[in-house]
Amino acid sequence: MSKLFEELQPFLDKNMAIETALTLLSWDNETLAPEESIEFTAKAIGVLADEAFRSFVNPEVREILTKLDEHKEELEDKEKAILKNLLKSYEQMEKIPPEENKEFSELTAVAGNIWAKAKNNNNFAEYAPTLEKIIYFQKKFAEYRKKDGEKLYDILLDDYEEGFNTEKLDAFFNKIKEEIVPLIKEVAARQDQIDKSYNYLSYDVKKQEDFSRYLAEYIGFDFKKGVIAASEHPFTTNLHNHDVRITTHYYENNLESSIFSIIHEGGHAIYEMQVADELTQTPVGGGASMGMHESQSRFFENVIGRSEEFWTPIYPKLQEMFKEQLKEVSLQQFVAGINKSVPSLIRTESDELTYTLHIIIRYEIEKMFLEGNLDIMKLPEIWNQKYEEYLGVTPSSDKEGILQDVHWSMGSIGYFPSYALGNAIAAQIYYHIKTIMPFDQYLKEGNLAPIREYLKEHIHRFGATKNTNEFLMDMMGEELNADYYVRYLKEKYTKLYNL
Amino acid sequence: MSKLFEELQPFLDKNMAIETALTLLSWDNETLAPEESIEFTAKAIGVLADEAFRSFVNPEVREILTKLDEHKEELEDKEKAILKNLLKSYEQMEKIPPEENKEFSELTAVAGNIWAKAKNNNNFAEYAPTLEKIIYFQKKFAEYRKKDGEKLYDILLDDYEEGFNTEKLDAFFNKIKEEIVPLIKEVAARQDQIDKSYNYLSYDVKKQEDFSRYLAEYIGFDFKKGVIAASEHPFTTNLHNHDVRITTHYYENNLESSIFSIIHEGGHAIYEMQVADELTQTPVGGGASMGMHESQSRFFENVIGRSEEFWTPIYPKLQEMFKEQLKEVSLQQFVAGINKSVPSLIRTESDELTYTLHIIIRYEIEKMFLEGNLDIMKLPEIWNQKYEEYLGVTPSSDKEGILQDVHWSMGSIGYFPSYALGNAIAAQIYYHIKTIMPFDQYLKEGNLAPIREYLKEHIHRFGATKNTNEFLMDMMGEELNADYYVRYLKEKYTKLYNL
Repeated sequence: MSKLFEELQPFLDKNMAIETALTLLSWDNETLAPEESIEFTAKAIGVLADEAFRSFVNPEVREILTKLDEHKEELEDKEKAILKNLLKSYEQMEKIPPEENKEFSELTAVAGNIWAKAKNNNNFAEYAPTLEKIIYFQKKFAEYRKKDGEKLYDILLDDYEEGFNTEKLDAFFNKIKEEIVPLIKEVAARQDQIDKSYNYLSYDVKKQEDFSRYLAEYIGFDFKKGVIAASEHPFTTNLHNHDVRITTHYYENNLESSIFSIIHEGGHAIYEMQVADELTQTPVGGGASMGMHESQSRFFENVIGRSEEFWTPIYPKLQEMFKEQLKEVSLQQFVAGINKSVPSLIRTESDELTYTLHIIIRYEIEKMFLEGNLDIMKLPEIWNQKYEEYLGVTPSSDKEGILQDVHWSMGSIGYFPSYALGNAIAAQIYYHIKTIMPFDQYLKEGNLAPIREYLKEHIHRFGATKNTNEFLMDMMGEELNADYYVRYLKEKYTKLYNL
Repeated sequence: MSKLFEELQPFLDKNMAIETALTLLSWDNETLAPEESIEFTAKAIGVLADEAFRSFVNPEVREILTKLDEHKEELEDKEKAILKNLLKSYEQMEKIPPEENKEFSELTAVAGNIWAKAKNNNNFAEYAPTLEKIIYFQKKFAEYRKKDGEKLYDILLDDYEEGFNTEKLDAFFNKIKEEIVPLIKEVAARQDQIDKSYNYLSYDVKKQEDFSRYLAEYIGFDFKKGVIAASEHPFTTNLHNHDVRITTHYYENNLESSIFSIIHEGGHAIYEMQVADELTQTPVGGGASMGMHESQSRFFENVIGRSEEFWTPIYPKLQEMFKEQLKEVSLQQFVAGINKSVPSLIRTESDELTYTLHIIIRYEIEKMFLEGNLDIMKLPEIWNQKYEEYLGVTPSSDKEGILQDVHWSMGSIGYFPSYALGNAIAAQIYYHIKTIMPFDQYLKEGNLAPIREYLKEHIHRFGATKNTNEFLMDMMGEELNADYYVRYLKEKYTKLYNL
């Protein structure tokens, strides 16, 4: 460690320790904590979030950072990356009054339960006041940080993906609308071509659990460094690179749901497990950005997990496990089934082709959160109208409409577009990786190690020491280019539906 | 809240929040965390323990406490109790250098895993250096705190039970030796009178889990405020009174083991769940002392849980669940079985009659930890000799000898005598409670609510605002008196073995 950097270390340690605790408290609340716990635990969470905030945003740290910035050239590479990351967070955070930050943390600590109950009761009105408060805070926070002429939503978007804003996203989403919407219509007209009724038979949940564990291990999830649990909405979290946790949700009448949650969250987890030991437990010790993270989960879920090559060696095992339900379903029918595209209501259950339209809807609504004078009780109606307009389907209830996603209850506004960016990055990596290794062959042999190794070597081990475009440039000499994604979807669906 | 007390509140809040986090980290490590996690997580735990310590032991808090102490009469009762508790902890803690406290926390954070592995490998030598370090620190800490003429072990004993020391415990244990050892010999000679071979048949673990859940609920464990998990050694922990967690360990070939772990830990849990809301999350928001806590767990486990009256309504359910194994076992045989006394090697599996001798052995060894020049590698031999001398049995391995208990690995030295005190308090409460309610009748009716209510009203709701003798005086006008315990054991075992 540089001499200069030593002064900063105690602050980093304290922040790391409290963030570790907050991560575990949050994980525990989603997976295990008893029903009446959170009301009291929220008090502790509020105090800890406040401590984390104050330990970092104070004049002493500000002074150290300024000094480090003036002597940047004396720092080691890792230290430079930490400094850059901290200066950015610092400039964001110091503009928010600590008591408001604390209030917001307490709010989001309970909001998840309120959302889950409202969803369960299929009643948006129960959740609306909480969501309104979350929007109020995020808007207020963005206003504190706003520079002249800046759009509020752009501030939040940049938090999740450095360098992205509404201008770039409008262009990206317009390209998707232009190129992909016609394809969606063509495919929708042919939806009867693929029969996936088998997916909705009854599948014993205990057996699904066993298969999920098998599958996680198969793709490379290391159980010495990770655990799987069940929760309302699947997610990945980690205390450090040796403790990475994923959840899934089992549905008796939907075989696919948990399978692809496991592969998706497994992709996130493998990313975190492969970060270098020297970076974990530092501010640059996690994935580089939400978009990069989603690129890895989507790469595993869609590029790998929905390919015929991937299922060739392991479909017999699934078939064996669910003999009765799958005995008449060939590998080819199964692969067609898991890729079937039908405009639908639920984002997390939607197919690759229509997925980005779910994102576009949320993107447009989030714009309204930040820019307009929103009447919160109109949200279900707005949501439903957009689904009708873009996908030709209308939710019959809040549960399968406005209440379906957990994200806003966590305070995450501006996150959704990362899913779409992640898909685009994944497609770009796919065309690149095929040029340097026998990708399909590896999948057919059940040999995922070289693929994981490549991702580790070129992405994972670096943690957050580079940004998206730096990663892509260093890997393949090209920045993010949405054309690959469009090409990928066109090739895949043209073939699948014999268009 | 008193005006004066408001100054202290932020420190209390911070301490509460960090302790909540540390409790959850420890629970998670024992029950769920992946194998390779702890090495990294220990770093966070060390920092947090240090933060908790420093946030409390600093000149500002010292000053506030002194000021509060000078104006004690202006405080509310609850505040007085907190002040008393803090002054005591403060006087203990301020004598220990923070960096040594941090080192000790990091040590105990990993010691549990080292102990578990050594136990698993049946190899004391693997654990010895860790145990030696723990003893070294505890001895050093006691030396920092020592007043003139004080014995080091007395300092640790008083931490667990205010007002108790080696002089009182020598007297207590001598009475037990004198009155109970002859009874143990009489009973041991008649051990063939009771056949409990049924207990060691094969019992499906999944079914044991189901019965454990039923049993926990039956005795009053509230699943809205608690969870059950599995761990190497059963324990109870809590974040606050609305989040109380117990663990058990299932053995396929020992039906009783998990049953009585559940009732025992359930007793601890009910205590914590019944603490008043206004006290929880304060320094006096948990059980009053280790001895009081053990009195409640033992009251549930032994006084209630090993009585014929308790099993009368629920034994048929157990029999129904394990038809094959229990069809020939009558209620009377089962009750005799769960009370059968045989001098044995494992404390946690030992019967009520011989239990205190296990404690006496640990008590005598702990005295050696603190007072003598211990050769750590001699411990297994010393342990085995004492078992031979007091109980007439000799461990054939470290696993069933010196390595059986988790306590020392947690840094707990001076805790074991609390188990014996707990038994004595439980017996005293038993003779009292029988004079004021139809105790046996309630058990036979499966109506435990009035018993829980009485304990709540007279003990649980007060948290740690009174000490053991104050509780007993207020309840029954008499301080702790070991004669009740001797009477209880004599009556019970004379009847059971027709002596």
